[in-house]
Amino acid sequence: MVLLESVRRGSVSPDEAAERLATLPARDLVFARVDVHRELRQGAPEAVLADGKTPEQAVAIVTALLDGGAGSVLVTRAEADVREAVQARVPGAEADERARAVWVARSLPPARGRVVMVSAGTSDGPVLHEARIRAQLLGTEVVVHEDVGVAGLHRLGPVLPDLEHADCVVVVAGMDAALASVVGGIAAAPVIGVPTSVGYGAADGGRTALNAMLCSCAAGVAVVGIDDGFGAGTIAARIARGRER
Amino acid sequence: MVLLESVRRGSVSPDEAAERLATLPARDLVFARVDVHRELRQGAPEAVLADGKTPEQAVAIVTALLDGGAGSVLVTRAEADVREAVQARVPGAEADERARAVWVARSLPPARGRVVMVSAGTSDGPVLHEARIRAQLLGTEVVVHEDVGVAGLHRLGPVLPDLEHADCVVVVAGMDAALASVVGGIAAAPVIGVPTSVGYGAADGGRTALNAMLCSCAAGVAVVGIDDGFGAGTIAARIARGRER
Amino acid sequence: MVLLESVRRGSVSPDEAAERLATLPARDLVFARVDVHRELRQGAPEAVLADGKTPEQAVAIVTALLDGGAGSVLVTRAEADVREAVQARVPGAEADERARAVWVARSLPPARGRVVMVSAGTSDGPVLHEARIRAQLLGTEVVVHEDVGVAGLHRLGPVLPDLEHADCVVVVAGMDAALASVVGGIAAAPVIGVPTSVGYGAADGGRTALNAMLCSCAAGVAVVGIDDGFGAGTIAARIARGRER
Amino acid sequence: MVLLESVRRGSVSPDEAAERLATLPARDLVFARVDVHRELRQGAPEAVLADGKTPEQAVAIVTALLDGGAGSVLVTRAEADVREAVQARVPGAEADERARAVWVARSLPPARGRVVMVSAGTSDGPVLHEARIRAQLLGTEVVVHEDVGVAGLHRLGPVLPDLEHADCVVVVAGMDAALASVVGGIAAAPVIGVPTSVGYGAADGGRTALNAMLCSCAAGVAVVGIDDGFGAGTIAARIARGRER
Amino acid sequence: MVLLESVRRGSVSPDEAAERLATLPARDLVFARVDVHRELRQGAPEAVLADGKTPEQAVAIVTALLDGGAGSVLVTRAEADVREAVQARVPGAEADERARAVWVARSLPPARGRVVMVSAGTSDGPVLHEARIRAQLLGTEVVVHEDVGVAGLHRLGPVLPDLEHADCVVVVAGMDAALASVVGGIAAAPVIGVPTSVGYGAADGGRTALNAMLCSCAAGVAVVGIDDGFGAGTIAARIARGRER
Amino acid sequence: MVLLESVRRGSVSPDEAAERLATLPARDLVFARVDVHRELRQGAPEAVLADGKTPEQAVAIVTALLDGGAGSVLVTRAEADVREAVQARVPGAEADERARAVWVARSLPPARGRVVMVSAGTSDGPVLHEARIRAQLLGTEVVVHEDVGVAGLHRLGPVLPDLEHADCVVVVAGMDAALASVVGGIAAAPVIGVPTSVGYGAADGGRTALNAMLCSCAAGVAVVGIDDGFGAGTIAARIARGRER
Amino acid sequence: MVLLESVRRGSVSPDEAAERLATLPARDLVFARVDVHRELRQGAPEAVLADGKTPEQAVAIVTALLDGGAGSVLVTRAEADVREAVQARVPGAEADERARAVWVARSLPPARGRVVMVSAGTSDGPVLHEARIRAQLLGTEVVVHEDVGVAGLHRLGPVLPDLEHADCVVVVAGMDAALASVVGGIAAAPVIGVPTSVGYGAADGGRTALNAMLCSCAAGVAVVGIDDGFGAGTIAARIARGRER
Amino acid sequence: MVLLESVRRGSVSPDEAAERLATLPARDLVFARVDVHRELRQGAPEAVLADGKTPEQAVAIVTALLDGGAGSVLVTRAEADVREAVQARVPGAEADERARAVWVARSLPPARGRVVMVSAGTSDGPVLHEARIRAQLLGTEVVVHEDVGVAGLHRLGPVLPDLEHADCVVVVAGMDAALASVVGGIAAAPVIGVPTSVGYGAADGGRTALNAMLCSCAAGVAVVGIDDGFGAGTIAARIARGRER
Repeated sequence: MVLLESVRRGSVSPDEAAERLATLPARDLVFARVDVHRELRQGAPEAVLADGKTPEQAVAIVTALLDGGAGSVLVTRAEADVREAVQARVPGAEADERARAVWVARSLPPARGRVVMVSAGTSDGPVLHEARIRAQLLGTEVVVHEDVGVAGLHRLGPVLPDLEHADCVVVVAGMDAALASVVGGIAAAPVIGVPTSVGYGAADGGRTALNAMLCSCAAGVAVVGIDDGFGAGTIAARIARGRER
Repeated sequence: MVLLESVRRGSVSPDEAAERLATLPARDLVFARVDVHRELRQGAPEAVLADGKTPEQAVAIVTALLDGGAGSVLVTRAEADVREAVQARVPGAEADERARAVWVARSLPPARGRVVMVSAGTSDGPVLHEARIRAQLLGTEVVVHEDVGVAGLHRLGPVLPDLEHADCVVVVAGMDAALASVVGGIAAAPVIGVPTSVGYGAADGGRTALNAMLCSCAAGVAVVGIDDGFGAGTIAARIARGRER
Repeated sequence: MVLLESVRRGSVSPDEAAERLATLPARDLVFARVDVHRELRQGAPEAVLADGKTPEQAVAIVTALLDGGAGSVLVTRAEADVREAVQARVPGAEADERARAVWVARSLPPARGRVVMVSAGTSDGPVLHEARIRAQLLGTEVVVHEDVGVAGLHRLGPVLPDLEHADCVVVVAGMDAALASVVGGIAAAPVIGVPTSVGYGAADGGRTALNAMLCSCAAGVAVVGIDDGFGAGTIAARIARGRER
Repeated sequence: MVLLESVRRGSVSPDEAAERLATLPARDLVFARVDVHRELRQGAPEAVLADGKTPEQAVAIVTALLDGGAGSVLVTRAEADVREAVQARVPGAEADERARAVWVARSLPPARGRVVMVSAGTSDGPVLHEARIRAQLLGTEVVVHEDVGVAGLHRLGPVLPDLEHADCVVVVAGMDAALASVVGGIAAAPVIGVPTSVGYGAADGGRTALNAMLCSCAAGVAVVGIDDGFGAGTIAARIARGRER
Repeated sequence: MVLLESVRRGSVSPDEAAERLATLPARDLVFARVDVHRELRQGAPEAVLADGKTPEQAVAIVTALLDGGAGSVLVTRAEADVREAVQARVPGAEADERARAVWVARSLPPARGRVVMVSAGTSDGPVLHEARIRAQLLGTEVVVHEDVGVAGLHRLGPVLPDLEHADCVVVVAGMDAALASVVGGIAAAPVIGVPTSVGYGAADGGRTALNAMLCSCAAGVAVVGIDDGFGAGTIAARIARGRER
Repeated sequence: MVLLESVRRGSVSPDEAAERLATLPARDLVFARVDVHRELRQGAPEAVLADGKTPEQAVAIVTALLDGGAGSVLVTRAEADVREAVQARVPGAEADERARAVWVARSLPPARGRVVMVSAGTSDGPVLHEARIRAQLLGTEVVVHEDVGVAGLHRLGPVLPDLEHADCVVVVAGMDAALASVVGGIAAAPVIGVPTSVGYGAADGGRTALNAMLCSCAAGVAVVGIDDGFGAGTIAARIARGRER
Repeated sequence: MVLLESVRRGSVSPDEAAERLATLPARDLVFARVDVHRELRQGAPEAVLADGKTPEQAVAIVTALLDGGAGSVLVTRAEADVREAVQARVPGAEADERARAVWVARSLPPARGRVVMVSAGTSDGPVLHEARIRAQLLGTEVVVHEDVGVAGLHRLGPVLPDLEHADCVVVVAGMDAALASVVGGIAAAPVIGVPTSVGYGAADGGRTALNAMLCSCAAGVAVVGIDDGFGAGTIAARIARGRER
Repeated sequence: MVLLESVRRGSVSPDEAAERLATLPARDLVFARVDVHRELRQGAPEAVLADGKTPEQAVAIVTALLDGGAGSVLVTRAEADVREAVQARVPGAEADERARAVWVARSLPPARGRVVMVSAGTSDGPVLHEARIRAQLLGTEVVVHEDVGVAGLHRLGPVLPDLEHADCVVVVAGMDAALASVVGGIAAAPVIGVPTSVGYGAADGGRTALNAMLCSCAAGVAVVGIDDGFGAGTIAARIARGRER
């Protein structure tokens, strides 16, 4: 889209661009006020939470965002029907079943920085991969290590070299979330914890993992919401890319 | 006391002994029905929780238990005034300020088995030492490692050899309690976790540590109540001593 | 499997064995990093939680563990489809509908020690039997008493003689979990409580039973997570078998 | 007081009496609208919760209630200063330190029915005795058994005969409150449970005892609020006295 | 059944009877230890909670209880399939769809006393009627007033005369449960509150109603568990019938 | 202060006035950015929460607000030392011990509308009077009825006529907060509920009252935070005064 | 209906009318005591909560209310089957799918006052529109602004002019509910917050939004229950219409 | 200290250095195992939590850390007695009353990057300043804006230019924490939220602020524990400094 290009080159100010975008007819969908302004303001296109939306609504929002000039669009928590509808009707859409995500990557920023993402168990996979896709679309390299449980510390071995070269580390873990403390005690980079709702009983829908991460004995750990891979990917990419200068 | 000796030698049955004890005048204190029967029944003398008792009451119960033939008496959660009162008025009483405990060890069973106790931080000390004293009075050897935080895994090194030779391991930790999962993933012996109320905010008075231990990814861990060093020492000693055969 | 045998006979060190195992192709399944190392390290094969796994995934992990030399493999929380798939495709697999378990017992350690398991009501059955199977596979004898409610104390009668000869007692109870306190006041062996999520309203999904067990007036009780029969069976077997000397 | 007498003899209707009382100057204290009407309506004089009141305020309300014709007045949660002030300035006032109560019993109804009150431990004493005094002032006989812990079931022995002849049983217990289930499974009379805030950690300020009593496996148990000895005494006396016919 | 008759006439002691019953083959069902002893001990036949039982299991337990001599059997939380199965296969079985109950009333005790049951709204009906049926089977008269909401106080009018003549009052209410406080301030009889799980959001599954009832400003109210109509009916009948003399 | 007068007369726009005010030296205190803009914007002067402030800080903020042209200033949660300091050093300051408030009323808006405030018990007084003072300072008439408990419905009598003529009703109640439902079912005016933290145990620090009010069966009730008399007085005055036209 | 008309003209008193209505046969439906009295008493017809009612029951209550003279009837939480049944069988019924509402507006009061309703996101729509319809039926004008998220403050721009002319503002928001604080800091009219159960994890079913609104830094905000559009519409209309004079 | 210098220059490996340090006598204090290894491993000296430590213990740990070669030492949650003791006995110690901190800055890393810290209210000051001091000691520039409440959005104006040039933004806020969402919707840099325990009632000790931040509608926000200024300062400095290359 020409307009965003102009903004990026500096020939059009963001506010001016936003004003122009506001007159686009596609923007004013009945069921959702699409915020194309955010990409201009914060360097990250608005994503679409598919929960509670019909496949038709999801397709319409994606189309509107792309028409509005979005460099990329990510639909999260998208079940099979939404993923299929978007892939069928939006050219260039890619999907990941495990991450429950579908997306269009039209013009990504050049990758900068490196995020290392580690998860404790198999069930943390969907959240980790949502974070990974989000971070990649925001323009950063992602290295993934899954199933690095604390109950078998020897599993941490292969992760250590990557931790050393990370600009940001994301730890995805449920239940006791001990992995966040262990990694947080090793890594020199900022660590973002993502508690997951894995487990039952005392796992308490992820609250135990959340609280354990928040009072981790390792300083330098900050936390996003339960199962919020999207949020983790967003802040991790911002950290890894650093300030645009 | 002759009666308990007879029971131990088998010349008097426990029930008979209990019946005889029931006639002792010292037993029927106004403010607390002293249970000398328990030592006969379960091999562990009743302990005294000093919380909410005056020094005078504590001294009276201790005296009654000793008069009733107790091999040892342990007073827990005993502040300075209680400890001093008991030491002043009961011959042979020993005290430990940090564990907030005072006790009389008249005739301990011969030590059997070995319990390894590890704590995560300095503040877990009072709970760990309450557990240690209780276990020692019940007749078991205790090896202690303090300040073994997970945020510095290298601190685990000196603990490993002892873990290998333990009959039971007690892990005392608050906040994220990650130490319980790490130790639980290493030790082959049964592990008893003691969550502590250390920390603030998300530590939630020990509930986070409790829940994290309960859903630890390491199987073979069981848990006692928050700050319950006494309970941990009791079950750990029973495990380490094994069944009397 | 020859390797594990060698380890057991001492001709190969566990670390060496783990290293060799690490080169086996079957180990590196896409969806789960199978930990054959644990059996070497802790004397207990890793079990498989079927929750959220397809029958195909369950079969693949079981096969990989057996190929890796596991003496036994236990699949828990296995619904009918998983149980049938494992039994159809893994020779020697046995199943228990009530415990929602399926397992292969190729080479069990010789049984040692005795665990007595008591439950309060009919609905506690699935958890009790999961604990029982786990403990038996780890090599210990298990004696079971079901439906020993506290509201009818006379039901405790037939349990008493077995309690006396137990190396470890497991109490499975939901709601008020009063049975744990009653048994904990009688048994001389270590007692492991398993709160269950039976009941509604104030039972609070098992939290009331959990808390009641944790603050049981009977010392010597430790607790595993809500409905965690597997964890209870693991620690109970370790306690009953005692340290390998 | 003549008026209440007349009401009791039936020569004055309660409403009429209430109207007359409403004109008494003493009734309209600034800090509390004294409800002399309740004794007429429900057969139980209003009691005074001393918490947050000065000794002067307590004395003034007691005096007003007596001037208004109350047959008895009970002040609960009264610390030493309140108890002393009331005893110093109100003739015939009696006090009980342990129950933190002070009261005047001018004209009690003739005693009818029998309530048996049992408590689990020494710390439950203050709540039990508040319940006892309340029930006695309402005109019923109370039999007390303290320290009947469940961890030593043999302690229940001396209580059994009294349970058989009770019109109502009150069980006062904190922590796991297992005593309520055990007694509830034995007694044929209605059982009122009073959870107490005794204990720490998982006792959760009495909530665990409350919930355990509410989901007791013994039917026929109802519960009042945490530490609410006053409420328990009130309903127990009503039950034991039966309907006035 | 002759045995129970003998017990009632006093020619056989309850313990003796229980012993004899223990030899009956029907008693030892695989899935539930039927407690025919309770009717002898507490004057109330054991009821059957249908939740989590198949229709076949429900029928088998009912049959066993009747074979064991039960005067009546009540099955609660019985969905249509259970109700139909019991009615089809047990002669004399009656059912109530709204109360989700099915029962057999072979020989009820002669009715004594009167319970008044009031509910706040239409949705409280199932709980109220479960309580009603239980109380009637235990041998007491029940008067019912439904939909007596507090938001329209004029609705209380027709209830007042019945409140005056009650031996026990049961208040069934969810959400704010204000009806319990209003009735508790009027009735002279003991009041049993039953909080219901009606409502959403701040109603918190009945916890708000439960807590509101527990701290009702009206003394003389005791509470059973959320939605526990069965428990309320049990204690209400015991209260209303009074002690058997 | 001339500036505010000009704004009120319309000769100076609020924004212009705010800009001018921003240059006043007194405004920029180190410990608190005083918001004189709010009175201009919303017609209500900022109040001062004394909690955690020294008497000196409180006096300084009050002085700054008055210097900035505030028509009135209210300090809430002011203990004796703060009240005395303000009264000693600010001319015209008035105080109310029970409401824990001190204030200066320099130029109040002419009173308009009428708020009726009712409380359930004596202990709700401080919250009620904080609400009353706040509403009066905002320019509305307040009628107060205290101690209108639901357990004695006859106490509602004298309140009814005032309810009929209210523009807004404020109900202050803790514990079961049944008064809010009862009043909410009678009043035709908007009702604002203020839950209080009165009581212990199941009162849960005011959460039970809060939840009970939120799910009150009476529509037309909205709620402010626990013990938030200030908030209730603010919205009640706005409602009673209506839109300025 | 003539009777209500007479009441409105003053020729029949409300009580008299209520009495007459009480004799109408249609009023006494088995499953719900229809309260036609409320419209007379509080100026608002009772609405019908469709949750847990069959389409037939909903139709019957609507018909009864209309027969009883209701000016309008609103059915909330009505799924498609209920909406269709009411529209098919009650002449003049209108429905709104998004608000899950169906209603009959026979004789509305003349509109007075203006309510501005703003929501934070698309998912808050159903609650907002339930509030809107309720307020309109009670006789007030409603202006709606949807999707005014705080994460893009520029979206607030078009709302500001309407906020200035509002008699009452309703803010519908879930998750962090920050919109309530932002609007509450701008609007001079009373603000009613409606927390919604939108979101997962830390959103906690709407409790976070509820608590955030309750402790909003903006005074002058009161709150209704989670998702309670009906309650918000009721109080907002009462506020906007002001006292009938 | 020479050793650390050598490590920094690369002539001694961290592990070697740690080994050498392990032999220093000062390291092995009785009450705390001082971890000088962490500075080598993660580039951040261990800090000292003064809570629960005597002034003497604090001084001893600070001295040990400095003797061990720490570039700086920070003592947090230090009340006046601890601050004075450290300043009296450790040369070069500085203190900040408001932040409750005392520290020694011997050799700070050269400052790199810029953190902007904003707080909502005066009471958030202590937490904000603890974060500020920590970040400065780790070697980053900090810009502070206090009292930027959301209820007066105009206060955000002076903050905006600084937000644009931040490498990381820290938002300190309690109660509804709306400021985090507003800033999170504006800033392009990573945002770290610090919930504070300011407020009462529904503020719930900071849990409401925590949850509101976690489900903030603005992506790119991560959160540390309640009142954890130390943790926020740590991660913010790491983010702002970027990876050391």
